[in-house]
Amino acid sequence: MTATTIRPIVEAFYKATAGRDVETALSLIDDKVDWLVQGPVDVFAFFGQRHGKAAVLEGYQEIARQLDVTIFRVETLLVEGDRAAALIRYSAMVRATGKMMSVRTSQFSRFAGGRLVEMRGIVDSYDLVEQAIGSPLGLIDTDVSLVPAG
Amino acid sequence: MTATTIRPIVEAFYKATAGRDVETALSLIDDKVDWLVQGPVDVFAFFGQRHGKAAVLEGYQEIARQLDVTIFRVETLLVEGDRAAALIRYSAMVRATGKMMSVRTSQFSRFAGGRLVEMRGIVDSYDLVEQAIGSPLGLIDTDVSLVPAG
Repeated sequence: MTATTIRPIVEAFYKATAGRDVETALSLIDDKVDWLVQGPVDVFAFFGQRHGKAAVLEGYQEIARQLDVTIFRVETLLVEGDRAAALIRYSAMVRATGKMMSVRTSQFSRFAGGRLVEMRGIVDSYDLVEQAIGSPLGLIDTDVSLVPAG
Repeated sequence: MTATTIRPIVEAFYKATAGRDVETALSLIDDKVDWLVQGPVDVFAFFGQRHGKAAVLEGYQEIARQLDVTIFRVETLLVEGDRAAALIRYSAMVRATGKMMSVRTSQFSRFAGGRLVEMRGIVDSYDLVEQAIGSPLGLIDTDVSLVPAG
């Protein structure tokens, strides 16, 4: 641990995110941020690649339109050098279906000049979609078997 | 960075994993490891919760049965205290379908006594399954809309 750790900035970012304080969260995001949360864009428009703070704000607004977030809890937070990695428990009510969903997501971020410049998010997206629609994705109805015959 | 960093152990674990050296990887895993890679267990049996090294070995064997892994590249590795977080590019040929898939996965791990005692893995599982079956999951055929009417 050095005197120049970015941990206070990272913790401020996650405190703001957990508290749905979009203004404070955005103040810690670089104007030219490179943001990617991988997941099915055709199911939830807030997934995908976003370039710049304005695009990230649109993503936050899309999340608010689709989800009523009830829990955003950072379970594990690592900080090393200019990078952070967070393992997050995320629960929300899906407005379109009324279903509750609870998933784990991970976020790998990089900071420069006191601001977040890169974000890579991963979600257990299959589970997320099944919970969001409230039923299994029904792969058993397809004619493709993923169990090798041998 | 302190003199007691676990980084050499973490790097040895990932070097072994990337090289499909299961024996060395297992030697760095605690007998009572708590292992969870979240994803659809009904699609790929190597997903899910595994208790103990023997169960993790079964998971490795199940992966080898279903996938021919071509790329396992640690893109980002953070180590802090007794924990590590890795962002990984993972590519494989799905033996049952012959399809290639390439996904990002994240692994959060904890080490004690020089061995891995806890693993939490997250995969962009929706994308993984779509790539594995070689076609979209066809949510548009369901009668559930995830776009709010308002």
